[in-house]
Amino acid sequence: MKAIRDNARQKMKKFCRVCKVCDGRVCAGEIPGMGGLGTGASFKNNVSALASLHLNMRLVHDITEPKTAITLLGYELALPVLAAPIGGVAVNMDLGVSEEDYNLSVVGGCLDAGIVGCTGDGVPPVIHEAGLAALTLHHGCGIPFIKPWEGAELDEKLEKARDTGCKAIGMDIDAAGLLTLRRRGRPVAPRTSQQLADIIGKVHAWGIAFILKGLMSPRDASLAVEAGADAVVVSNHGGRALDHTPGTATVLPEVVAAVGGRIPVLADGGVRDGGDILKMLALGADCVLIGRPVSVAAVGGGREGVARYFETLGDQLRQAMVMTGTPDVRDVSPSIIHGLNG
Amino acid sequence: MKAIRDNARQKMKKFCRVCKVCDGRVCAGEIPGMGGLGTGASFKNNVSALASLHLNMRLVHDITEPKTAITLLGYELALPVLAAPIGGVAVNMDLGVSEEDYNLSVVGGCLDAGIVGCTGDGVPPVIHEAGLAALTLHHGCGIPFIKPWEGAELDEKLEKARDTGCKAIGMDIDAAGLLTLRRRGRPVAPRTSQQLADIIGKVHAWGIAFILKGLMSPRDASLAVEAGADAVVVSNHGGRALDHTPGTATVLPEVVAAVGGRIPVLADGGVRDGGDILKMLALGADCVLIGRPVSVAAVGGGREGVARYFETLGDQLRQAMVMTGTPDVRDVSPSIIHGLNG
Amino acid sequence: MKAIRDNARQKMKKFCRVCKVCDGRVCAGEIPGMGGLGTGASFKNNVSALASLHLNMRLVHDITEPKTAITLLGYELALPVLAAPIGGVAVNMDLGVSEEDYNLSVVGGCLDAGIVGCTGDGVPPVIHEAGLAALTLHHGCGIPFIKPWEGAELDEKLEKARDTGCKAIGMDIDAAGLLTLRRRGRPVAPRTSQQLADIIGKVHAWGIAFILKGLMSPRDASLAVEAGADAVVVSNHGGRALDHTPGTATVLPEVVAAVGGRIPVLADGGVRDGGDILKMLALGADCVLIGRPVSVAAVGGGREGVARYFETLGDQLRQAMVMTGTPDVRDVSPSIIHGLNG
Amino acid sequence: MKAIRDNARQKMKKFCRVCKVCDGRVCAGEIPGMGGLGTGASFKNNVSALASLHLNMRLVHDITEPKTAITLLGYELALPVLAAPIGGVAVNMDLGVSEEDYNLSVVGGCLDAGIVGCTGDGVPPVIHEAGLAALTLHHGCGIPFIKPWEGAELDEKLEKARDTGCKAIGMDIDAAGLLTLRRRGRPVAPRTSQQLADIIGKVHAWGIAFILKGLMSPRDASLAVEAGADAVVVSNHGGRALDHTPGTATVLPEVVAAVGGRIPVLADGGVRDGGDILKMLALGADCVLIGRPVSVAAVGGGREGVARYFETLGDQLRQAMVMTGTPDVRDVSPSIIHGLNG
Repeated sequence: MKAIRDNARQKMKKFCRVCKVCDGRVCAGEIPGMGGLGTGASFKNNVSALASLHLNMRLVHDITEPKTAITLLGYELALPVLAAPIGGVAVNMDLGVSEEDYNLSVVGGCLDAGIVGCTGDGVPPVIHEAGLAALTLHHGCGIPFIKPWEGAELDEKLEKARDTGCKAIGMDIDAAGLLTLRRRGRPVAPRTSQQLADIIGKVHAWGIAFILKGLMSPRDASLAVEAGADAVVVSNHGGRALDHTPGTATVLPEVVAAVGGRIPVLADGGVRDGGDILKMLALGADCVLIGRPVSVAAVGGGREGVARYFETLGDQLRQAMVMTGTPDVRDVSPSIIHGLNG
Repeated sequence: MKAIRDNARQKMKKFCRVCKVCDGRVCAGEIPGMGGLGTGASFKNNVSALASLHLNMRLVHDITEPKTAITLLGYELALPVLAAPIGGVAVNMDLGVSEEDYNLSVVGGCLDAGIVGCTGDGVPPVIHEAGLAALTLHHGCGIPFIKPWEGAELDEKLEKARDTGCKAIGMDIDAAGLLTLRRRGRPVAPRTSQQLADIIGKVHAWGIAFILKGLMSPRDASLAVEAGADAVVVSNHGGRALDHTPGTATVLPEVVAAVGGRIPVLADGGVRDGGDILKMLALGADCVLIGRPVSVAAVGGGREGVARYFETLGDQLRQAMVMTGTPDVRDVSPSIIHGLNG
Repeated sequence: MKAIRDNARQKMKKFCRVCKVCDGRVCAGEIPGMGGLGTGASFKNNVSALASLHLNMRLVHDITEPKTAITLLGYELALPVLAAPIGGVAVNMDLGVSEEDYNLSVVGGCLDAGIVGCTGDGVPPVIHEAGLAALTLHHGCGIPFIKPWEGAELDEKLEKARDTGCKAIGMDIDAAGLLTLRRRGRPVAPRTSQQLADIIGKVHAWGIAFILKGLMSPRDASLAVEAGADAVVVSNHGGRALDHTPGTATVLPEVVAAVGGRIPVLADGGVRDGGDILKMLALGADCVLIGRPVSVAAVGGGREGVARYFETLGDQLRQAMVMTGTPDVRDVSPSIIHGLNG
Repeated sequence: MKAIRDNARQKMKKFCRVCKVCDGRVCAGEIPGMGGLGTGASFKNNVSALASLHLNMRLVHDITEPKTAITLLGYELALPVLAAPIGGVAVNMDLGVSEEDYNLSVVGGCLDAGIVGCTGDGVPPVIHEAGLAALTLHHGCGIPFIKPWEGAELDEKLEKARDTGCKAIGMDIDAAGLLTLRRRGRPVAPRTSQQLADIIGKVHAWGIAFILKGLMSPRDASLAVEAGADAVVVSNHGGRALDHTPGTATVLPEVVAAVGGRIPVLADGGVRDGGDILKMLALGADCVLIGRPVSVAAVGGGREGVARYFETLGDQLRQAMVMTGTPDVRDVSPSIIHGLNG
C-alpha cells in the first residue's frame, strides 16, 4: 500500500496530500480538490465522530475466522463495503489518468476484492458515461448513482443506468444544493416524498432496486422508506454539499432507529480502516461506503491498487472482529463500543 | 473573491493576515489591528460557539428558491444581514485607503447587494464624519452607530446622525469600558435604564428607531426593551471590549427568550458564511451583522468587493436553506440545528 | 509594558520565553526555569481552568468608577492583588540581576502600586535573606513566606520574618513534597493540624497574622481554619510541587464553601489580567496572588516595571468591572460568570 | 536520566524520537517502531485517559516516608511496578544492541531497583529465548509472558518458561488478533474460558501462578477469574493490538469492580511518572506495568539505565504520595483523584 500511496501523492499533488490520516484538516475548503466545503467541518466531523467511539476488546472466546460476507440488494459482497460513487476525479484534477480508466480501476478492483463499486455523475457528460461504461463492461456488477436532476435529464440518465444491467440504482439527493449546476442550466433539486415515490416506481418497474443517498435525519429516512426506497445511505457527501453538518456516525443511530429495520441502512463518511467499518456496523449500518481512500488507491495503483486496498481493509476488519469477539458482520453488537449497551 | 482577499492581504499585512478561516487565533491581542482584546478569547469564542452547532441536512422537500428578504425597522433587506459598524479601519491601519473611501465602499457596496451598512464612531472626528457623510450621500440608506459618550458629545452626534436621513440610529453601549477614551478626556459610559429611556425618547421624537448594540445578557436585553429600544444587538464588540466573554451564539438563545418577541434581536460575532447566518437565525436572531470580512472585502475590493462578498454570502445562504429545507429566513426552525427541537 | 517584556525576554532567554500568553505549554517540565513540574499539567490546568470561565457583559447600569481597594490582615491594598512569593529567581537563573535587587524591585514596585509583595524562601540562604532584607528596608510592608522546614530552621526563620516588622507571615506548605531538600539535609514536611496550631500560636503571640498557602482541598482548608490560620491561599505552587493537579480555579469554590467565610481565602495560579482577577473574586476569593508575570516585570523593568505592571492590571480590572457591572471588589457576584447564579 | 535519554534518542532514531512526553502522537502508526497501531488512538487514549485525572493535593498530615512495597504472587517489590513484557526491541529495530543484552538490562535493572521485569515472546525464536535466558540467569526473578499460540507451541513455551524458575507465568491474550502471525504459519488465537482453565490448571500443577494480560472489559476479567487466573492485567498492548480502544485508565474501574477483589488487578498503558502510578492505584490497580520508557532506559543506559529509571520513578511516587497524603501504596484512596469519592 505504501508504494500505491506514494504514487498517488505524486500524481495528485495539486489536489490531495494523501495524508497519514485522511481527516480533512489540511485540505479544508479545497474544491476542486478532495477537501470539504468551506471550513471543512462536515468532512472533519465525519472523522472525529468515528474517532470519538472506542472499541471494547474481548479475547475470551473462540472466534478466529469471523464472517464478513453479506448480501445487499442482490449483490454478494465479501465485505460489508462498497466503493462510494465519486465522479470527475480524473476530469477535475488533471491527474494523467482518464475518467474511463479511473472508473475501470474502481469497478474492476472492487470485483477483484469480492465487492462492488458505485459510479458517479456530474458535468461534463464524460463523468456519468465513463462510470456507466465501466459497469456495462462488467455486466452491471456495480451500482450507478445519478444526481437529482430536474426535468428530462433524470429520466434519460436513469434509463442509461438501467441499461448497464445493474441490480440497483442510486440517487445522491444531497447534491441538490449545488447552485452552480443550476446556474449552468443543469438544475438539480430536492424531491418530495411523492416525487421520490414516482421515481422509485419507475425503477422498480424495471426490476431494479433504488437507493437514496445523502440522508442525515430520521425525518428524511422515514420519508424515503415510505416512498419505497430499498436502502438509504447516511451521508453528507463527504462534507462537500453543506458545511457544518454533524458527522455521519453521530446521526446514524437516529436514522437506524427511524428506519426500524424496514430496509438496509448504509453509511459513509470518514471510514478509513477495519475498525471504522465495525463501528458503523455496531451503530446499526448494514454496509459502508468508502470514498477518498479508494480514489487514492485507484490513482496510485489502478485496478490492482483498489483490490489491494480492500484486501487490506478486509484483514483489518477480520482482526478487529477477532479482537472484539464479533463472529459475523451481519450481527454486530452495539456493546463492542465502549459506553453503549448490547 | 480570491483576488479581493489577496489584495486585502497585501494592503493590510501589518494588521490582518486575511486567514483562510477568520477565527481570531493568529491576531489574538493585536489592537490596533483586527484582533480580539487580550488573549482574544472573546473573538475566538464567537467563532467556536458557532462551529459547535451542526446543521441537519434535509432534502426530501420541494424548496428550491428559498426566500431571504426581510424588513427591519423600515429597511428592506435582500438578506437578513447588515454590515457591522467598524470605525477607524483606514485611520488606524494606514492602508492607503481614506476613511471616507472606506465608508463609501461599505455603504455603497451594501446597497448594491440589496442590504444596508452601519457606520462607526470614534476618535479622531474623521471616523464618525466619514461614516455620516457616506450615509448622507446615500440618502440615509444605512444605520449610523454612536458611542455612549458622556455629556454633550452624545447629543451632538445623535443630531448629526439624524441629519443623514436614516431610519434608525444605533448605540454600541459595549464601548463603555474603554478607559483609554476616558483618559483622553472623551469619556464613554454605561447607561441606566432611565438614562437609556431619555435618549431613546429623544430619538423617537425625531421619528427614528433606536438600536442598542452590545448586549450579552438577558438582564440587559430586558432592560433595553423596557427602556424603549426598537432592536437589540447581541454582540461582544468582536471581542474587543472585554476579554473572556462567551461567544455570542452561546448567549443568543437566552437573550431571545428574555426579549420574548417584543422587538427584533440581531446578533454578530464570528458570522463568516451562509451556514453561520442560518445558525444565528435558528437560535432566534432576526438579522445578523458581519464585521471583519466586510472590512477585508472593502479594503481588498472597494465597493465592488463589498457587493461581491454579500452576493457570495447570499448564494451560500440559499444553498444552506435548500440543504436544510428552510423556505424563508423569517421562519427558521431551531430543529435545523442538531440536538435542538423545533 | 512591551519594552519591559522585550527586555525580560532578552535577560531570561535560557529560562523563560516571555510568551504572548503565559500558559505553561512551551516551558513544561523546565525546572530550573519557569515551567511546571513534569508534564506541566498543573501549571497548564491553572490557566485553562480560568480560561474555561466566561464573563457576562453588563452595560445597563451607572458604574463608571468601580472600587478596587481592600484591607487584608491589616494591609491596605489598592487592588485585591499581592505579588506571590517567588524565591531564587536571580539565584537560579543567572540573569545579571542579584537576588537582593530582584526582591527590592518586587517589594518596592508593589508599594508604588499601592499593594504589597510577598517574599520567598529556599536554599541557599541568600534567597530568604534577600527577601527579608527588602521587607525590613520597607518597614515590613509585605509578607514573608517561610517553607515548612523540619526542626529548628522553621523557628529561626519565623523569628527572622517577625523582625521585618511585617503584619503577617505565610507558610507555603505545598513545598513539603520536595524530596531534593530532604536529600540535601534540609528536610521540609507536611504538618498535622495540631502542629500547625502550635506554629500559629507562636506567631499569634507576636501579634502577627498567619497565612497558610498551598491548599487545594476543602479538607485541608477546614483543618487550616481549625488550626487558627488567619487566611488560606488556594495554590498548587504554580504547578511546581505536584504534577497533574486540577487548576486552582477548579477547586477554589469547594475551598470557599468549606471555609464558609470564617477567614479570607486567597488564590493564585494562572492569573494574568484584570478579567482573571475578577473571575477569582467571583468564585469566592478575597484577593489573588500573581507570580510569573511579576518576575517578568521585575527582571525586565525593575521596580518601575513591577509598578507599571500592576497599574496596567488595575486598569484592566476597572475596565472589566465596568463591563460586568461590578461596583466593588469586596462584593463580586458569581453571576458575572456565565452559567453561575448569583 | 537526561544522558540516558539522549543516548537512546541517538540509537533509536529510526524508531523512536524519545519525546519529552511519550504520548503516541508523533509515532502514530509506526510499526515496526514504537508507535500505536493505525491512527495510534489506543496508545494516545492511554495517555489522555490518565492525563484527564487530576490529583488532589493534601498537606495537612504527618506522612513523610510513605510505604511503596508490595507482595505480588510471591514476588517482593519495592515499588508497585513491573517492567512490561516487550519482545523484539533489539531484533526489530537494529539498535546495535542484541536481544540478549536488552533482556539482561531489563531483568537485571529491575532487580537492582528492587522490582522484577517481565519478558516477551514473538517471532523469531531469539525473542523468547533471550527473555527466558535472562530470567534463568537471574533464578527466575521475573515473569515470562507467552503469546496465545495455537497447538503445541503453547505447551512447549509454557514448559520453557516454567524452567526459568519463575513464580508466575503470563499470557498476553491480546496478541490473538495478529493475523500476520497466522499467515506465517504460527497462529495465535483467543481462548474460551474452558480453554483458559485447562492452561491455567497445567501451570498451577507446576506450583506456578498464571497472569492473563490484555483484558479491557469486565466480561473478560470475570471470565478470567472464573477460569482460575491469579491476576489480570488491564492492557491494550500499548495500543498495538487494536486501534480505537479506550485508554486503560478508562476501563480499569469497571474491571476492578467486576473482579471484586478476588485476584489482583494490574494495569499498564501510558504510565509515565509517579503520579500516573498513583492514579492507577487510586482507580483500583494493585500494581502497574511500564513499557516504552523502560525500553528507552535499557537502550540508552543498559542495566544501570533501567535501575536509574525506576529509582527516579520511586522518588516521584513517594513525592506524589506525600503531596496527596497517601501513607501506603497498598491502600490508596480514590478520593485523591479530583471528583472521585473515597
